[in-house]
Amino acid sequence: MKDLIPEDMTAWAIARDVNGGTRRALDVLEATQAVIAAREPEVQAFAFYDPRIARAQAEAGPIGPLAGVTVTVKDVIATRDMPTGHNNARYAGQGTGVDAACVDTLRSAGAVILSKSVTTEFAATDRGGKTRNPHDLARTPGGSSSGSAAAVAAGMAAIGLGTQTGGSTIRPASFCGVWGWKPTWGVISREGLKLYSLTCDTLGLYARDLGDFNLLADVYDLDPAPRPSSLSGLRIGVVRPPLWDRVEAPMRNALDTASAQLASAGAVVEDVTLHDDFAALDAAHGTILMREGRAAFLNEARARDDLHADFVAMVANAAGITPEDARAAYRTADLCRARADDLLAGYDAVIAPSACGEAPRGLDKTGDPSMNSFWTLLSVPVVSVPAFTGPSGMPMGISVITRRYADRTALAVAGLSAKVVGGAIA
Amino acid sequence: MKDLIPEDMTAWAIARDVNGGTRRALDVLEATQAVIAAREPEVQAFAFYDPRIARAQAEAGPIGPLAGVTVTVKDVIATRDMPTGHNNARYAGQGTGVDAACVDTLRSAGAVILSKSVTTEFAATDRGGKTRNPHDLARTPGGSSSGSAAAVAAGMAAIGLGTQTGGSTIRPASFCGVWGWKPTWGVISREGLKLYSLTCDTLGLYARDLGDFNLLADVYDLDPAPRPSSLSGLRIGVVRPPLWDRVEAPMRNALDTASAQLASAGAVVEDVTLHDDFAALDAAHGTILMREGRAAFLNEARARDDLHADFVAMVANAAGITPEDARAAYRTADLCRARADDLLAGYDAVIAPSACGEAPRGLDKTGDPSMNSFWTLLSVPVVSVPAFTGPSGMPMGISVITRRYADRTALAVAGLSAKVVGGAIA
Repeated sequence: MKDLIPEDMTAWAIARDVNGGTRRALDVLEATQAVIAAREPEVQAFAFYDPRIARAQAEAGPIGPLAGVTVTVKDVIATRDMPTGHNNARYAGQGTGVDAACVDTLRSAGAVILSKSVTTEFAATDRGGKTRNPHDLARTPGGSSSGSAAAVAAGMAAIGLGTQTGGSTIRPASFCGVWGWKPTWGVISREGLKLYSLTCDTLGLYARDLGDFNLLADVYDLDPAPRPSSLSGLRIGVVRPPLWDRVEAPMRNALDTASAQLASAGAVVEDVTLHDDFAALDAAHGTILMREGRAAFLNEARARDDLHADFVAMVANAAGITPEDARAAYRTADLCRARADDLLAGYDAVIAPSACGEAPRGLDKTGDPSMNSFWTLLSVPVVSVPAFTGPSGMPMGISVITRRYADRTALAVAGLSAKVVGGAIA
Repeated sequence: MKDLIPEDMTAWAIARDVNGGTRRALDVLEATQAVIAAREPEVQAFAFYDPRIARAQAEAGPIGPLAGVTVTVKDVIATRDMPTGHNNARYAGQGTGVDAACVDTLRSAGAVILSKSVTTEFAATDRGGKTRNPHDLARTPGGSSSGSAAAVAAGMAAIGLGTQTGGSTIRPASFCGVWGWKPTWGVISREGLKLYSLTCDTLGLYARDLGDFNLLADVYDLDPAPRPSSLSGLRIGVVRPPLWDRVEAPMRNALDTASAQLASAGAVVEDVTLHDDFAALDAAHGTILMREGRAAFLNEARARDDLHADFVAMVANAAGITPEDARAAYRTADLCRARADDLLAGYDAVIAPSACGEAPRGLDKTGDPSMNSFWTLLSVPVVSVPAFTGPSGMPMGISVITRRYADRTALAVAGLSAKVVGGAIA
């Protein structure tokens, strides 16, 4: 599908043309609005969209590294001129008057903040929203950043902002066939994002071209890191995270295929053996989310009687998490983060599945985050490359991962990989 | 000074009377407003105060565990009906339309959200604001939660909300002679607080009576923990944190006096020897704040040219923090947090200074946080007991600390300690 969207609608091409004077931001916006008119009725990616708000920004003649670049913002991220609804009745139509820091930075760079995109409730459940997968309207786009992934995949925005606490950015990227990037924890401000887990919540990004992520890495001031220019001689590890038994055959085949393709391109590819300590990470992730979610949703539970049972249970500590459990979970996470730093220092990057398989049928659930939570709790950057097509014709992504702060290395290796990795998996 | 404020203006007494029908919330508010009229012109604790906003809440007849309790909110914490100015020109008079989670929870409990209180800029500098110490107008109240500490000390609100990233809650509590509580990291939502450091930012609380903190512990759903009813036989450690050479003689004497007083009351008091690893914690705190602050203030630096040099330097990474530095700092913090869990498990509580000494003269600077950052980075709960008076007649607090999630134990031990600890230090 992304092949059907003109390359001149990528962020880097838009910014190049608007800054060069060969296109106006308004022309870009009008072309985008034509796509929205065609696709939004079936994809339903947007939680809020008022064409006048976008038009006013485009008409103002934006300048900067993202001049004229259209951005859709997950509806748990605050925007000063659009409501932030969190897919929750209490916040429907509710404005905040202040941009989230990540949005503020994009505005300063000349971006056009176009729309709010559908999220699962508070970005903290796997209950699907209204959004459909642009590649097959009967399938979930993944979640919780459902709308941003689907909108970028359908060409309705150049860039999508999402969040990830478990697998909420990378899994939808895989399901929708777009580039996804969960940066290192803490390098892009989370101010103005609905809070679920301080330890895990991370801004996520979507684009249809890796070059757009390189632009965003500059705008968001990511740390310098080596950017290899060839796969030849790169040390690439292949990771099969805990919960590997949940990965379906097509994704296993995709990972094997990617490994072989990277090796053929000259990379030194080897399977990574994980220390036994990592086996405890998934349970630690669950414990930390339950404990932090209990604090995060307390005010919602106190303010109203109709909060969904998912959140009421978290606030009531239905899982029975004790202080001892919490201390032990943080200790596991801390230990594994240090181990991951050491392990990943031995590779230029590692690869792993971006999801368990193709997007499942149905919109009730957003799919299985088992291949994502592991990396989220480790704080490391993950870039999902939209490389493969599964047996149902749906996209499947491969994640490229490095140690903390080496996001630019992950982006570079992902870009090199995209040139040789991919294909149709039977 | 707190002895001059009637006990019936504590939170627990207000809530008892309003719920019992013996006082109206409006009566409480009017009595509070009389104090404000008398003291605010000299103390200057408030960044925003509109008596009509408070009056509307009191007239509505609040019910709940904090019915009628007046609360002043540090001006980096979002309030739906008052601006949140951050002591920064860009945000002056700027509303958010949504309460911070911690404020929302207080409203649901019946509290009257009275005012916004002065903060240092973005709660992230030691440049003083306009607020004066109610005990000596020529001295700083401490910071960054300057206004909330001073307002509670002067009787202008029953409860004050602050934040702590280094020593921004506990130090002002010590300087202003009020109870201060920095809860365990993560147990009270930080949503709606200006972001500086995800790793360290914590909501802080002020009151004039320990009973008020016990009420707040219920309202904020703190974890159950042992609550001893006698000092007899309690194991109390005495900690002299790294940077001890910055502690002035009066505070050293106060700590020694407190130790002796606790021992006389039957506690088993012993000096704690800190593992050598803890010596690296202060530098790790600095590195983490520089790295996280760089991300936190990026949007401010991009949006305008007149940002204070403090923040410009942080965004420009003037400190030259490398990814390796950051990884090492997090590793140190993680290691020490696990060590602290183990160490503190051996005591019912430990005590330490709440500041280096009395509040310094002058309003330019808010004082030295060296006795606070250590505990902040360890994520542990700290309760400052307003126990001593120094040679200049200024208050000095002693901190009671436990391991993570044992806030209720820290509160109980602090309450028991307050009965036997204190006095005038020559």
